[in-house]
Formats: sequence, C-alpha cells, structure tokens
Amino acid sequence: MALMTGIEYIESLRELDTQVYLFGRKESNWVDHPIIRPSINCVAATYDLAHEPEHEDLMTATSCLTGRKINRFSHLHMSQGDLIKKVKMQRLLGRKTASCFQRCVGMDAFNAVFSTTYECDQKYGTYYHENFKKFLIDVQDRDLTVDGAMTDPKGDRGKSQGLQSDPDLFLHIVERKPDGIIVRGAKAHQTGSINSHEHLVMPTQAVSEEDAVFAVSFAVPSDAPGLFMIYGRQASDTRKLEPGADIDLGNKKYGGQEALVVFDNVFVPNERIFLCGEHDFAGVLVERFAGYHRQSYGGCKVGVGDVIIGAAALAADYNGAGKASHIKDKLIEMTHLNETLYSCGIACSCEGCPTAAGNYQIDMLLANVCKQNVTRFPYEIVRLAEDIAGGLMVTMPSEIDFKSSVKVPTASDLSVGEWCNKLFAGADGVTTENRMRILRFLENICLGSSAVGYRTESMHGAGSPQAQRIMIARQGDIENKKQLAKDIAGIKD
Amino acid sequence: MALMTGIEYIESLRELDTQVYLFGRKESNWVDHPIIRPSINCVAATYDLAHEPEHEDLMTATSCLTGRKINRFSHLHMSQGDLIKKVKMQRLLGRKTASCFQRCVGMDAFNAVFSTTYECDQKYGTYYHENFKKFLIDVQDRDLTVDGAMTDPKGDRGKSQGLQSDPDLFLHIVERKPDGIIVRGAKAHQTGSINSHEHLVMPTQAVSEEDAVFAVSFAVPSDAPGLFMIYGRQASDTRKLEPGADIDLGNKKYGGQEALVVFDNVFVPNERIFLCGEHDFAGVLVERFAGYHRQSYGGCKVGVGDVIIGAAALAADYNGAGKASHIKDKLIEMTHLNETLYSCGIACSCEGCPTAAGNYQIDMLLANVCKQNVTRFPYEIVRLAEDIAGGLMVTMPSEIDFKSSVKVPTASDLSVGEWCNKLFAGADGVTTENRMRILRFLENICLGSSAVGYRTESMHGAGSPQAQRIMIARQGDIENKKQLAKDIAGIKD
Amino acid sequence: MALMTGIEYIESLRELDTQVYLFGRKESNWVDHPIIRPSINCVAATYDLAHEPEHEDLMTATSCLTGRKINRFSHLHMSQGDLIKKVKMQRLLGRKTASCFQRCVGMDAFNAVFSTTYECDQKYGTYYHENFKKFLIDVQDRDLTVDGAMTDPKGDRGKSQGLQSDPDLFLHIVERKPDGIIVRGAKAHQTGSINSHEHLVMPTQAVSEEDAVFAVSFAVPSDAPGLFMIYGRQASDTRKLEPGADIDLGNKKYGGQEALVVFDNVFVPNERIFLCGEHDFAGVLVERFAGYHRQSYGGCKVGVGDVIIGAAALAADYNGAGKASHIKDKLIEMTHLNETLYSCGIACSCEGCPTAAGNYQIDMLLANVCKQNVTRFPYEIVRLAEDIAGGLMVTMPSEIDFKSSVKVPTASDLSVGEWCNKLFAGADGVTTENRMRILRFLENICLGSSAVGYRTESMHGAGSPQAQRIMIARQGDIENKKQLAKDIAGIKD
Amino acid sequence: MALMTGIEYIESLRELDTQVYLFGRKESNWVDHPIIRPSINCVAATYDLAHEPEHEDLMTATSCLTGRKINRFSHLHMSQGDLIKKVKMQRLLGRKTASCFQRCVGMDAFNAVFSTTYECDQKYGTYYHENFKKFLIDVQDRDLTVDGAMTDPKGDRGKSQGLQSDPDLFLHIVERKPDGIIVRGAKAHQTGSINSHEHLVMPTQAVSEEDAVFAVSFAVPSDAPGLFMIYGRQASDTRKLEPGADIDLGNKKYGGQEALVVFDNVFVPNERIFLCGEHDFAGVLVERFAGYHRQSYGGCKVGVGDVIIGAAALAADYNGAGKASHIKDKLIEMTHLNETLYSCGIACSCEGCPTAAGNYQIDMLLANVCKQNVTRFPYEIVRLAEDIAGGLMVTMPSEIDFKSSVKVPTASDLSVGEWCNKLFAGADGVTTENRMRILRFLENICLGSSAVGYRTESMHGAGSPQAQRIMIARQGDIENKKQLAKDIAGIKD
Repeated sequence: MALMTGIEYIESLRELDTQVYLFGRKESNWVDHPIIRPSINCVAATYDLAHEPEHEDLMTATSCLTGRKINRFSHLHMSQGDLIKKVKMQRLLGRKTASCFQRCVGMDAFNAVFSTTYECDQKYGTYYHENFKKFLIDVQDRDLTVDGAMTDPKGDRGKSQGLQSDPDLFLHIVERKPDGIIVRGAKAHQTGSINSHEHLVMPTQAVSEEDAVFAVSFAVPSDAPGLFMIYGRQASDTRKLEPGADIDLGNKKYGGQEALVVFDNVFVPNERIFLCGEHDFAGVLVERFAGYHRQSYGGCKVGVGDVIIGAAALAADYNGAGKASHIKDKLIEMTHLNETLYSCGIACSCEGCPTAAGNYQIDMLLANVCKQNVTRFPYEIVRLAEDIAGGLMVTMPSEIDFKSSVKVPTASDLSVGEWCNKLFAGADGVTTENRMRILRFLENICLGSSAVGYRTESMHGAGSPQAQRIMIARQGDIENKKQLAKDIAGIKD
Repeated sequence: MALMTGIEYIESLRELDTQVYLFGRKESNWVDHPIIRPSINCVAATYDLAHEPEHEDLMTATSCLTGRKINRFSHLHMSQGDLIKKVKMQRLLGRKTASCFQRCVGMDAFNAVFSTTYECDQKYGTYYHENFKKFLIDVQDRDLTVDGAMTDPKGDRGKSQGLQSDPDLFLHIVERKPDGIIVRGAKAHQTGSINSHEHLVMPTQAVSEEDAVFAVSFAVPSDAPGLFMIYGRQASDTRKLEPGADIDLGNKKYGGQEALVVFDNVFVPNERIFLCGEHDFAGVLVERFAGYHRQSYGGCKVGVGDVIIGAAALAADYNGAGKASHIKDKLIEMTHLNETLYSCGIACSCEGCPTAAGNYQIDMLLANVCKQNVTRFPYEIVRLAEDIAGGLMVTMPSEIDFKSSVKVPTASDLSVGEWCNKLFAGADGVTTENRMRILRFLENICLGSSAVGYRTESMHGAGSPQAQRIMIARQGDIENKKQLAKDIAGIKD
Repeated sequence: MALMTGIEYIESLRELDTQVYLFGRKESNWVDHPIIRPSINCVAATYDLAHEPEHEDLMTATSCLTGRKINRFSHLHMSQGDLIKKVKMQRLLGRKTASCFQRCVGMDAFNAVFSTTYECDQKYGTYYHENFKKFLIDVQDRDLTVDGAMTDPKGDRGKSQGLQSDPDLFLHIVERKPDGIIVRGAKAHQTGSINSHEHLVMPTQAVSEEDAVFAVSFAVPSDAPGLFMIYGRQASDTRKLEPGADIDLGNKKYGGQEALVVFDNVFVPNERIFLCGEHDFAGVLVERFAGYHRQSYGGCKVGVGDVIIGAAALAADYNGAGKASHIKDKLIEMTHLNETLYSCGIACSCEGCPTAAGNYQIDMLLANVCKQNVTRFPYEIVRLAEDIAGGLMVTMPSEIDFKSSVKVPTASDLSVGEWCNKLFAGADGVTTENRMRILRFLENICLGSSAVGYRTESMHGAGSPQAQRIMIARQGDIENKKQLAKDIAGIKD
Repeated sequence: MALMTGIEYIESLRELDTQVYLFGRKESNWVDHPIIRPSINCVAATYDLAHEPEHEDLMTATSCLTGRKINRFSHLHMSQGDLIKKVKMQRLLGRKTASCFQRCVGMDAFNAVFSTTYECDQKYGTYYHENFKKFLIDVQDRDLTVDGAMTDPKGDRGKSQGLQSDPDLFLHIVERKPDGIIVRGAKAHQTGSINSHEHLVMPTQAVSEEDAVFAVSFAVPSDAPGLFMIYGRQASDTRKLEPGADIDLGNKKYGGQEALVVFDNVFVPNERIFLCGEHDFAGVLVERFAGYHRQSYGGCKVGVGDVIIGAAALAADYNGAGKASHIKDKLIEMTHLNETLYSCGIACSCEGCPTAAGNYQIDMLLANVCKQNVTRFPYEIVRLAEDIAGGLMVTMPSEIDFKSSVKVPTASDLSVGEWCNKLFAGADGVTTENRMRILRFLENICLGSSAVGYRTESMHGAGSPQAQRIMIARQGDIENKKQLAKDIAGIKD
C-alpha cells in the first residue's frame, strides 16, 4: 500500500457517502463545490508534498507499528526529533497553502489516544490500546485523513455536561449493546471533518463519575449511518461562487473548512471503541490532545505568517515604499513575532518526553505557552500587515471592474477596467494586476475567509486563551519558585 | 429651508445624476442597491437624529455665517465647546450605526478650507474665502452632505506628484479658462462619495513650487460632467445580495462605503475655486484637514467600540460565561481602551484654539496622538471581542441552514434548521437566533464588511500611522524638553 | 496674608515640632537633612512658582470662600476650567522638579472632603461642612501644605477592618469625649507628610455599619501630640549623604518623600472633625479623593515624562546617535505615550461636573482610565529611555572616580579621573561631565530614588491598578452598551 | 587538576595582582570588599554547583580537547544537546543567585573564537586556532574564569573606529614586536572582569581594511602589566557598606559587577594572539559571540525570572492577597512571559548546527529573536511584580528602623522597631521581618542594585535592541517569503 497522491486522495473522497449540508440543503457533489474544494486542495497538499524528495524527510516517517513508510501525519512521535519534525512539516505546509491543512487534528488525536488507552488498559484491564493500534495501522496503511474530533457544542458554558437542558449538547453513549455502542451528540467547529475518511472522537472536557456516559472515544468512517455534517460559513465565502473568480479570492487554490458534525444515534462496533465510561481518563485524553495541538500552532501558523510577511513586503515594494525605514522596521517586527511563535513550537518539542506507551509527548507547560502566544501575535502580525498594505486593500473595486470593457462616457473614452488599471498603478514596472493580487491576498487573510483560520482559529483552536492560562498556572510550579525566593531573601520558615 | 429628514435626504439623492459603476457596469438605481443602501442609511441617520429633541444639542448648531439653525455636520466650530460637541455627536452616531456615517469628511474639510482660504487671501489677495463662504452657506441652507475629498491614488509612493509616470495619479489643473478651470485625476478610498451631494476637493499632500498645478481645491456637484465613481468591494459584501438576508449580515441596516472618484476633465467655475496654484497653502490645508479628521476618530470609533463591548458582553451572557472573572476583566480592558480613545478625542478638542479666520482648530499634537492610538486600540478591542465570542462566530452555519426545513434522514427525523437550533443553543432562556445574531454582528465587525470601517479605516483613515508619527515629532517640542532636562541635571552650555 | 515664598515655607517648617524618625532614631534638624531636603525643595517650588508672573494664572486662584488670591493647591475647583488648570499646574511642576511635589494630596483631599461633608450634613444634620470650610479658609489664608492622608497599613488584605488581629492596622476612633475624639492607628506611604503643616485624615476604604469607628475624617497639625513619622527609605537614598554629592544624584535639588505617620492616641477637637462614624460616607469620600488623585497623575507624571524624554534625547545626542531613525522613533513613541496620559488628565477634567456642594468633580470613568494608563505607560517610557541611554547608565564609575587625582601607575601616568574623562567621552563638543550628568539623571529616574516616584508611585499611588479596574467596570454602563448592540443586531427581548 | 570549589576559586583570586579602583582609589583587598564580594559569590556558585551530584550533568562536561571532565563554563559545545544544557545550566544558576554570575561571557567567547580562528587560519594560514586551543586547554585544566571582553567605549556612535578624535576609544594594536604586540584601549561594561583570572579580548564591531589595527583578539591574565579596572557603581550599592546590612540588601549573598577595563600599552605574547589585523574576521567573531550571548539570556534571565515570580507570589501571600483572581492572573502572565524567553533560548539551541571547526553554533535568527524578547519581557515581569508587591516595597522604613530600640515618647511607649513591626504586619502567621525580606528582594531587583542586571543588562547586554533587529532583518530571508506569497497569490514575474 503506497502513499496516496493528492489526486488519489481527492478521488478517494468520492468513494465515501459523506452526508454534507450546505446553505440549507444536501450537497451531493461536495468534492467539486467551489466553496469546499480549496479546503480539499489543502489536505491534498499533505499528500503531494510527501512525494517530493526534498520534503520526504519531513513529510514521511517509518511506522513504529509496522516498520513501513508512512505519511508523517499518521505517525506516532517516537522521539524529540519526531516532535520537532512535526512542527517543521506544519510550517512547511503553512508556507505552501497559507491556510489550515486540517490533517493535524488526526495526528494529534492519534498520539493522545495511543498513550491514554495504554494507561487506561493498565488500570482497568480494558482492551482499548489494541483496538486503537489496529485502527491506526489501517489508517497508516491506507494513508487516511482522520478528523480528531473533540469540541462539543457545550450549550450553557456555566453548566457541566449532565446539567444541560438538552443532553445532546455533549456527545454521549445512549446505549450499550453486545457488539458495540450507540452514541449521540455532535462535534462543533470541526476543521476538515468533511475532508476526512474517518472520525476519531474524544471527550471535550474532564468528566465526573456521574457523567460517565460522556467519557467516550471511538472511530467511525465519515459516512457511518446517522452521521452528517452542516458546513460553517466564512467571511467572503461566496466570492468563490463568483464566475471567473480568481484575483478577488486572494488565495484561489487553498482555504479552510469547519463544520458541525452530528451523530444521530451512530453505532460504534466494539473494536472501534477507545474509551467507554472510564471517566478519569477523559481529562487526561483532553489535556494530551490539547497539548499536542497547542504545539501544532507553533508550526502551521508560523508558516502562514511567513507568507503574510512576504506579502506585506511585496505590497510595500509594489507601492513604491519598500525602502522606507518604518516599513522595514515593521517587517522586522512581524518576523520577530513569527519566529517567537516558532521558537515556542520547537522548544516544547525539544523538551518532550516519552509516555508510558512509548510515544513522545510535548512539554506541557511550553506547549501551553506556545498556544497562548498564538492567541496574540498573529493579531499583531495582521495589524502590521494592514498598516503596510495601505487602505487600498479594502477599498479596491472588484476583479470584475478591473476586467470590465464597459465604456465610461467621459472625455477619455476609457473602459471601467482601463480606468481601474490606470489609476491603481503602483511602482513602475509592477502590473496593477499583481498589486491587486497581493492586496487581495492580504485582505483575505486579514478580514476575509482566511482570517477565520489565521485569526479566530489562532484564538480558539486547541482551546481558548483562558484554557492555556489555567494549564500554565497548574504547570508553573509556583511553590518551587517561592522556595527559590525564600532561599535568596533569607526567609526560613 | 429646514433641516432634512433621513427620508428627504434619500430622496434628494435620486435627484442627482451621479454616475456609479459597480461590478463592472453602470448602476442606475444605486440608491436602492442592497450593497449600497446600508451606507446611505448611515448618512440618513445624521439627518434623523437632528430631529430628535434629546439629541438636538449635539446634532444641531447655529450657523456663524447666517445665524440659522443647521446640522452640526455643516458647522464651523466656533469654540472649544463646539469641538467637544463634534466628538460627542460622532460617538452618538457610532453608537447608533456601528458604522462609518461618512458625513465627517465634509465637516472636517469645511473647517480646514475656511481657515486656509482666509490666510491665503490675506497673503495673495485671492478671493477664495468669500467663494468658500458662499458655498458653505448654500450647503448649510440646503443641508447637504459633502465629500471632503483628499486622498489621490498616488501611484509610486517613492515619487512626488510631478515625477509619476502618469500625471493623473494626482488630481491637477489641466487648463485655466476665463470662467474656471479644468481638472483631471481621481480621489481614492472616498468614504461616502456616492452618498454626497457635493465634492469638496483638496490636495493630498504638500506641493512644491514646480508642482503648483497639483495645489488645487474646489467644489463640484457629485453629478458634474466628467465625474464618476467606481465602487470598492468589501469583505462579505455580497451577503447583502442573498435573498432574505438578515441575520448573516450582522448589521442589516447600516454599513460603510468607499469608492474611487474619477475626474475626467471636470470643469470648475471660478466661484467654486478655493485654491488654485498657491502651492504653499497645500500643505497647510492637508495638515488642518488631517488634524480635524484625526480628532474625529476619537468620537466615531469610540461609539462603534461601545457597541462592540456591548455585543461581546451579550455573547458572553448568551454563552453562559458572563460571570467568569476573565470575561469581566476583558470587558474592562475593552472599556479602558475605548475610553482612552475618547479621552484623546476630548482632550484635543478642549485644547483647541481659534484660527485667524475665527473658527476653532484642535490641538495638533493631541489630535495626532488620538489617531495614533486609533491605529492600535480598535485592533485589540476586536481581538478581545473574538476571544469572548468564541469560535462559533466563524464556524456557524448560514442563516439559510438555520431556517431550512429540509429533513435530514437520520433517526431523529429533524430538519437542518431544527438541528442547528438544537445544537447551537446557549444559556437557558436565550434563543439560538439571538445568539446567532450577536455572533454575526461580531463576525461582521471583526472580519466582515464592517471590519473595513472599524479596523482598516482606523489604521489608514485620516492618514496612515507613520503620518501621525511625523506630526508628533514635529509638534513634540523636543528642544524645550531637552532644556528641562539640562536644568534639572545641572547642565549649563 | 500673602502667599508664602519657597524660603518662607521652609522656615515655617522649622516652627513646627514635627517628630521625625530616620534610620532608627529621632532626627531633630530634619529640615536640613540631605535625604529629606530635596523633597522639601519640591514643595517649596509650589510656593515659588506662584510668584512668577508667567505662571500666575496656573499657580494661583481666587478663593470661592473668601475671594482672596490663593495658591491653587488650596483651591476648590469651581469649573471645568479650574480642573484643567489643576492638571496643567501639575504638569508644570513635574517639568520643573522631575519629582513628586507632594502638595496634590492635600488639594485632592480638600475637594473630596468639601463635597462629602456637605452631603453628610444634608443627610445627618451634622456640622462637618462648616468645620471644614473654617479649616480650609485657614489653610488658604496661611498658605499651608496639607497631607491628605488616606492609606492605612491594612495588615491582612484578605480581611476587613474589624477582623484584623490588631485594630491599629486601620486608623479608628478609640474614644469620644465632649470636646473631641481620640484616634489611633497610622497612615502608610504618606507622600510629603513630614513637609506638611497639617494632616487631613480620611478613611482608607468603604466602611460597614459594624465597623463605624473606622469612618473618621479630621485635621490635626503635623506636630500634634501623639503624632510622629518614620521615614521610608528609597533606592540609592544614601547617595545624598556622600560628601560633595552632585552628579551621582541625578537630580540634586529635588526628590520625593514617603513616611509612615503614626497616630498614637491623638486628640482631635470637635471643630476639626469632618466625619465621625457616618459609615456610609466613608466609601463616597474614598472614591472622590481617589478620583481627583487619579486625575492628578495625568498632570504630574506627564511633566516628569517631559523631562525624561528630553533627557533621553540629550543622551542620544551626547552618544552621537541622535540622528538614528530608530532613536527618533523611540522618542516619538515616548512622546505619544506621555501625551496620551495628558489627554486622559485633560479629558476627565473637561468632562467634570458640579457636586451638590458646588465644587467640581472630575468624570469618574475617565479619571480611572487616566490612572490605569499611568500604571502602564511610565514603565514603557522608562524602558525606552533605558534603551536610548545605553548600558553606561548603570556601569559608569562613581563621581568620585571622575574627580579622583589618584595616579594610576601605568604607561600613560594618568589619574583615575583623567582615565574616566578620556574613556567615557561621547560626541565631539560634549563634555564627559555633561554626558555623566544626563545618564545619572536617567539612572535615578529609571532605577534610583526617583524611580520610586515615577514608577512605583505611578503604579500604586491613588490606588493600585485593580482598584481602577473595579471602578471602570462600575462606571462603564455595560447594560446600556448591551442595548446598543441589541438594537443593531435586531435582538428584541 | 580537579574542578575548583567556590572557596578555592575565591582564594585563587587573591593570588592575582589585579589592579582595582573603586570610589577614586586603589582597593587592595577587593576580594573581601562588601560591594564586590557578592559578585564573587555568584561566580563561586558556578564552581560549587559543579560538585553537587544532582547538577553534575548540567554543570560539567567532557572536554573535546582533552577528554577530561571540566566545568561546562569552559566547554566547547559539541552538539545541540550541549547548547541546550548550556541554557539549562544558566537557568539553574539564575535560580540560585537571582543575579548575573558573570562566567558566561568567557564561555561564549571560547566558542566564538574557536570557530573563527579555525576559519581565519584556513584562509590566511595563520596559527591562531592552535594558539587558542592551547589557551583553552589551560583554562579548562585550571578551571579558570575568563572575561570575554568585547565592548569598547566607542566614543561618538556616529563615527567609525578610525575617525574618533581619541584612538583609544577603541582597543587597538599600537606596536608589533617580534615576540608579540602592544595593545591599548579599554573594554567598558565588563561583567565580572575583576572576578576573572584571564581576559579574552575581541573586537567590538566589524572592521574595515583601513582600520585593521582594531581587528585584534588575544588573551592576557587579569593582572597583566598595564591592565587595570575601574569599578562601576550601581543603584543602592552602598547599602552593602551599611553596618549589619542584611534585610535591606534584598539579596545579601549575591550580586553583579561591571567595570571599565583599561589596557594601557599591554604586551601580548605571540602565543596568546587570536586575531591580529585580519579585519574581515572581526565582524564574524562579533556576530558569533553576540549570537551565543543572545542565547545565554534565554537561560540566565529566565532563572532570575523564576525567583521574581516566586517572590511576587510570596509577597501576595504575605499581604493576604494570594487568592485574588487578578493576582493569580498576573502570576500566570509573568510565568508565560518567562517561559516564552526560555522557549527562545531552547529553540535557538535545538536548531544549532556545527561550524567548520566542529563546535556547535546556535541558530542565528532565533538567538536574536531570543534576545529581542529579553529586551522587553523582563520589564513587564518587573512591572507586574511591582504591581503585586504593593507600594510598601518602596516606602518601607529601613532595616535599622525595624531593629531600633529607641523609644518613641507617645502613649504606647513603644520603640521605633516595635512600631514598625506592629504596623507593617501582614497576613496572620507571617512575621513582619519575612514580609520585609521579600519586599526588599523585590525592591532590589526592580529598582535597586540587581535591577542593573535584570533590567538594563537585559536591554543592552549582548547588544542593544537595534542590533538584534538588524540581524533579524538580515537572517529573515525576506526574498524567499516574497516568493511564497507570489506563488499563492498567483503572481508570475
């Protein structure tokens, strides 16, 4: 079984009977839908790059389960070096797509479920780790994309799972059968769910004993009976539907995707169950997945940041302002912030350590510090990009105007498109179209559909800022720090 | 002649033969176009509020030219109190529209041109001040909206006006005739140009002697022969075209507008000329207009900020998170930043002083400080709003999904809309629709069409950040500060 | 009775029998003590400047109680203009002294006690307002400096007044007598207490009914029996004791002062009592004093900031780096931050309104916003100053080294002083001594004795940052903001 | 030859005839001088910790030159692991001393000179690498502390070396002799110079061909004829001279040191020369040393930060405020910032790569990013510490007051010390002395002698902020980033 190419991956999606709802109705040919396709292209890039010799070292790995060559996105990290390569792979893909390429959630889920099931089996004599290994070998061998699905809709944030007025606001076990379980509920904000072959479901938060039905983890195919998705809309999403859309998209080929994934009494066979009521492992699993995913942001968003910095620099050149000292200083600041994020991604990897199951886990404190910075710096990077770009980024006429041959009946007798191209000319030697292109790219990432991935996802993906602060407090070992201060200040007590 | 109502204003626009191009072709009934109309409603609000007794004090004034009651938007500020009321009026309108209401550029231009023409006439014996007073009395009496048009396309930023490869990149005089002049060029990023009855044109930057043809100021009706506009597109603009669009718009009634205004050999009669080659007054005029407009941002954006703070607080309530201490702290921070902006708006007004012509000018240093803060704090306010709102703001299905009665063929036999309403329920007692509404409002202002006005316009409107820094350096009186330090440090030299 | 001069003020201090403890023992001639004297000089400047014609408008006022000309530091603000002049007077003094000049606490207390006693009398039929007016007329006529004393030691912050293990941790009434009361406790961090003729005591926080003994306000002379002070030490304080100290002091003439003021059973006659158990006015009084004092920081610290900006600019010149673009940009940023603080000081004044008693109160929301910014920006100003100054600011040999004629027995046969002067030379034409002077000034304000006033006092004076945040939350009118958002988002409920 | 203990190290200093000037005269017994000794104790800690088994792995290494066990401070880093251990060793020492322990400059110089001499020899056939290896083996075997001396006084920053009015403002070769060279000039801000056995001198900046006499690197003993030091003074330095000083010192045992090191015609024998006129290697050497040293700050300052966080947490506990949510949040923020710095230190190490000479070099971009953050975050950590500590940190009476038995003649008949202890009591169960101790520790690090090391050294050590920005610009590969943006935006040119 060889690694799939991007095209093979796209074709493989057609073989699934995934149920997708978009703008109020079922979308049969969602694979070719202009709003959805860019996000599929992003996942496809994770396949294609694995075939490029120069990226092979980052994009592929040798499975510790089978010894076979696999895509790194389905790899269990077996060393600090693996953790570091993960981050570098993510930065690479960010640089190539300037988007969320969606396949990380699966990878992060694999590594979290692997170690958690091992420990659960040790404690409770369950069989989840073997179940999971079989599942993962299949994923690796078939080179599948998997949605690591964690976040429940949650309803009233002030109430725990069991106290919600509607139990379906948290995914839960509704029935246990001899051959499996029936589950019900939903996962919200699912990045890349539609583009995944499988869904690997995890609990969304720690679970108390009385709420044990919410402590459930399992995998089902994306087209399992009872499972369907409702597509989330993004800023400027329908530009992709405009005839001949190109420049106004900013990023024509790539994009992100989020959906609500509903489980309306879905059956999970026993061999696909990885947690089933062992409530004390729900929190562990959440924390580990979150940890890996907070590390991820130190790679992917840095790659996107690289493209933004490049685009801002180009915009300045095209404006004829590339040599102004304040412009150069802003590009330095953007670079500085972006590399600080990268440093955090690398550091939590480099300080990783093995779990009882043998795979490696990031340093929890530093992974949370990484993500906390990601909730801040991309916003400042975007702000600086908007500063450099200039107001034209948001006041420019549409691509259709630039291409319009409709004559304006005034003295010059020029067409709308000729006027646009004439008056929005920038530095000598730069075509107005290229200037438009770079400004539309920036518009899209600053306040268009890609802003969803670069900004809001940086804020809330892998947990909202406050979640990281709680972890930083817990991991910060404040008592030890107090003792250091006592020793130096001469306090004995 | 009485103050117009909003409806009268809208009808008055129909009487003009303004030439508007949108998506590549001429738009005849632009007044009712769904993309344009919200911006017209905003201007209409400046008329309607003037009729509400509770707002009369802020919204109206007594003309110093005629003694008649006028809308404050066409007033010459005759005291510090007037300058302060201007800021309060702007905050009021920001609170009512959460948008750019566009009429400030005219007001700021009136005040800048009034004092500059006075001084130009003093020096050169020109007749511009009288010209301008006649024009302004007409504007006041007919209660017109005027586009104060300053920013040229500028082409290559590294080159001055005369060195551009295409002279039309800066608006200039092409011919002087006995009865007037012919001008040619364009004004870019024009906020509310289409919604204006008149255009009051000013130079975009200081002008040297050899470039004197670029030192020109005048007024023409928006439908003057040779004048036309090309509409600028915004993020998510076409949502306004979606059938039944309401919730997904975030702000259904109000919005902003920018356009490219082209002058293709437009004739300006002598009595409408306010500057015509007196190059040394170009810089003065630019600086004054910019100063007034930098003050404006300490009012309008603060009003919008008020709505964002309220929306974020509502979103937290609807999520059931309103009582969390970190949420409360973020709302405090947003309030703190917003009121700091307001303080700057008030302070530069309160420290204002009379010009030679008699109207009042803001304190230049503090007005620039005000705007400089506006290039920063709205971005942080938006970041905090996104933090509080949660990821659903950008992953939520469309309004059409929420309203869809298409059945999903799974166990529960619910429609798409029923699923959406069930699974995106928030705190008890809050309808899912209301939760959607507030999240869509925030989406729109953070990364949709309103982000153009709240973010990018905060950055570049009234001059980009570096322009303020240059003014702060110039106004900061560093030599005097050095002397203070010498006195205290005991340095004699 | 005329306004005192600085010298008369200093002589007037000698007439008091103020009990001062310093370094463990009683200091009789504290007026001439080198550690204390600079703080006295600062207060003296508030007297001297009142005699300079160019500053008369800011420094003096006409008493609303007597119609006589008084120093503005003992004035009741009777208009927004008065509030603004107060801020300008404070900026002026900050510019002249680069220190805390201490007399503001009295002025702020006068205005708070004046309006609070009026309202208390209205409610309870007490006689405090008349008492206070008599006291204030005396202060005005004799041109006295008064310590407005609020902050108690507080003990365990987690406990209210009555629950402290030692009741003396909050100042309280210990006995009521026919002719007065006996009070006991202390006021900590008292700025300028020793340099004051009188102490005007206020409660430190809101008081509940059962703790009514802590709701007490009164005035006593600084040498009242039972009252004494213990001097607080500052960073680098003993440099002032070094023989011939000049350059190393950074600011030879001026400085700040804090002390613990102890009331060990001090008798207060009835006519000097302004609150005595009416617990519901304690919180009111605290809030008003804090409000006025938070406004004050928008003046005094801005003045000090002016000197720091000048000093940093000089340091850059002396280093030969004054023309580097990053240096200029940092000076702009310092100016921007400093003027933002000033804007807040002006705005809360300009938005002030009359109290029931007739004097004017600042806008409470904006005054708290002002102070909140003061807890941040001076730190950044100092950071930028340290950046510009260069490391020499903290690694430079002592003044004694620079002046030493001790020969170093090496080839050049130069003295220690000659080596220092040779090797620490800066730009041509600048004496090494002048370079030293400006660096020592910066050292002193960044991390020496003046850092106490510019940094830590900016943080905690007039209440720590969290106190302002609580007030901002309370004053921010969040419910109204929610309604604005509902109106625009189309939410009806 | 075994590793020295701290005591042996201190005794070894007495054997040198180092010439030290302090307060204008020669200080013979500088080893025991109270102002100097704490800095010696810091260096001694680098010796003592190497003997503790739990720290052996970090504190010692196996020499790649001799195979012998050495102190890591004299080690050549031979792997990424070595670079990481370096950072961890520095954090450890920061945690133990809360000061600058001074031995890093030597270590960083060893690694920079090692690789640079190798490449210089390759190009020019010089013999410097062998010279240096011999020198380093001696250092390793004798376990010496070496001052890596780089920064020249520099005079007028606007002029290059050769254009200064006094050539001695940059250290240079004055004469070449058969057996060596004579050098002249000085090194300023030398951390730990007096406490070093040897001085390893490097150029301070890139050198052009005509200025080749400034391209010189060599080592001489600290007591070489013609070499002497003048001690730099610090804030609050003379507190160390106060009789019985303990609590008021904040950090009684440890501290930092800077001095001016003068070379008045010092002879350097040929075998101790590592660069002598090969001007093109001056810049290389500077960049490498700076790179290593910028990495160092991601370790040492983080360790100090740990102590500050602990101290702030203790101060809050002692104030009875440890449980307030805003306090906890500030401690989280401090931890977050501190760990971000650590992440940068680790990341630039983990991304290190071998030089031609075989030792490992950090990633230059990330090392500069690391240091740039160090010029910011410690200032914010200190600001937050001051916030948490409360104003008492800077208004507290002296230690002498707390211990004074002088009676205050008031009703209670208590001594000054009793009053202090009574009124500055904090939370129950905490002694006032302990509260004082932790506040004095914080005072010392925020605005006392330790602020020199934690703040100003963080700003300027290893190069001022602008130096890092220049390197970030150079290393940021902006052209490649532009290409990424072109690829995605569809720009072909």
